[in-house]
Amino acid sequence: MSSVLRITIIGVGMIGGSLGLALRRSAPGEFEITGVDSDRECLKTALTCGVIDRAAASLPEGVQDADVVFLCTPVLQIPRLVTQLLPYLKRGAILTDVGSTKGFLRKQITGLLPPNIHYVGGHPMAGREKNGVAAADENLFRGKMYILTAGTATCMAAVDIVAGIVNRTGAQVTVMDVNRHDHSAAVISHVPHVAAAAMVNLLDRYPGQEDILLQLAGGGFCDTTRIASSDADMWADICMTNAAAITDGLEQLQSIIDEVIAAIGREDRASIHAFFKEAKTRRDKLIASL
Amino acid sequence: MSSVLRITIIGVGMIGGSLGLALRRSAPGEFEITGVDSDRECLKTALTCGVIDRAAASLPEGVQDADVVFLCTPVLQIPRLVTQLLPYLKRGAILTDVGSTKGFLRKQITGLLPPNIHYVGGHPMAGREKNGVAAADENLFRGKMYILTAGTATCMAAVDIVAGIVNRTGAQVTVMDVNRHDHSAAVISHVPHVAAAAMVNLLDRYPGQEDILLQLAGGGFCDTTRIASSDADMWADICMTNAAAITDGLEQLQSIIDEVIAAIGREDRASIHAFFKEAKTRRDKLIASL
Repeated sequence: MSSVLRITIIGVGMIGGSLGLALRRSAPGEFEITGVDSDRECLKTALTCGVIDRAAASLPEGVQDADVVFLCTPVLQIPRLVTQLLPYLKRGAILTDVGSTKGFLRKQITGLLPPNIHYVGGHPMAGREKNGVAAADENLFRGKMYILTAGTATCMAAVDIVAGIVNRTGAQVTVMDVNRHDHSAAVISHVPHVAAAAMVNLLDRYPGQEDILLQLAGGGFCDTTRIASSDADMWADICMTNAAAITDGLEQLQSIIDEVIAAIGREDRASIHAFFKEAKTRRDKLIASL
Repeated sequence: MSSVLRITIIGVGMIGGSLGLALRRSAPGEFEITGVDSDRECLKTALTCGVIDRAAASLPEGVQDADVVFLCTPVLQIPRLVTQLLPYLKRGAILTDVGSTKGFLRKQITGLLPPNIHYVGGHPMAGREKNGVAAADENLFRGKMYILTAGTATCMAAVDIVAGIVNRTGAQVTVMDVNRHDHSAAVISHVPHVAAAAMVNLLDRYPGQEDILLQLAGGGFCDTTRIASSDADMWADICMTNAAAITDGLEQLQSIIDEVIAAIGREDRASIHAFFKEAKTRRDKLIASL
């Protein structure tokens, strides 16, 4: 590799854009950032805003010199994208992604790769409910956890290179087993996203009350449903690619809500109090340790 | 009434304390604020911090001169409290509360009152997950909706007096029918509180994963579950006093989650995408109009 690390970001949206911006600002001259996106307007904006050093005219042209390629599209687009770009990669190139589900990609991508191309799964624990390159933020990753996933077949030298890049964004890198990642992400992130969207769509079951619901919507509702404003494509893909763990988590959530409904039905205040008390204690402890 | 309006706040916690602070700061000399609380330390802090003008030595002594009494305890304590204080109220006194459920209180309190004492239900759409008088904030109500509930038996002159006081906190007063309030509050506030607490308690179903869950907990989880750090006593009472509407809302929420589970099961990406898209569109519109 040359002394300047050549990084290509495919999908210059909120996450990809924030990555480019953070790397260009934190380490000027250390990286050369190329942007690839099917949306030409988006690439133009990315150039103007200093998110990337150059905009690729095509996918092949964008990846042919890359040392490391960050795949920043919704998860389900990634396997096809990898098939398309593989012929143009140079030997030793590293592929990494920023998707929220890791087992699906490992399974899909590992079979496609020749031995001299490496894949490292990645998942930044950072996001905003805004989309697009205009929402890019150079501090998006600062102080946040950035998971890299490893299995027996993973090239640890490749993991180290990706970790070195990610560190430049101010994120804290942790290497984690793929399956543990997917199960835990379902519980702590994917299930809450589904539940938040369900709480918003619940309003649809009460037609003719829009005005009054609006008057009653306080900060609690806004916060609880903030993540329901996330990108629908991204979240549909997450549900499709971490199906078993998400379904299990949702069913467990349903059984907890069943218990609350039953306790309300038998006017069992002690159980309901214990339910809220446990949640408060657990969350306060969790937040304190973050 | 004298030119100085005598207000008694029973339960000088986060909400009661914020009310006292807001009234004393926004309209010096217009009100005389008396605090009543079973916790003597809390009353001492309230005096020191300028939340109240004077601390009552007892409930009778605290309410005997009051023009308006704000009942700021958890909902289930209110009927007993009203029974205890009624003998000491002067003619024409007004009782109001800040509870999240209104039908229960109207039913309980209306039967207790002599004709020369008035009750006006109140519900400020403001809160914090912190408890106690130390969390009192003079700007808690500023710009927020503050619902007053009215029925056929409500004395509108009493509503006007309470509205005049509430306006001094910077809140925006809306008068609303009791039943409509309770049904809408269930959907927009009570169900989300139960769901947020359920999402926190869900972590309990995955023992031995605490460390990894902690690493994956991003801002999304913190925001979505913020209201799960609310006071357990307050929320147990809300569930007990708006049971039918909350149970209905929780069952509707479950049926929505059931649809998502079914769509994931049949690998129906289009339905899942439509689910997230509808939530995003609806929430973005809602937030824009707040």
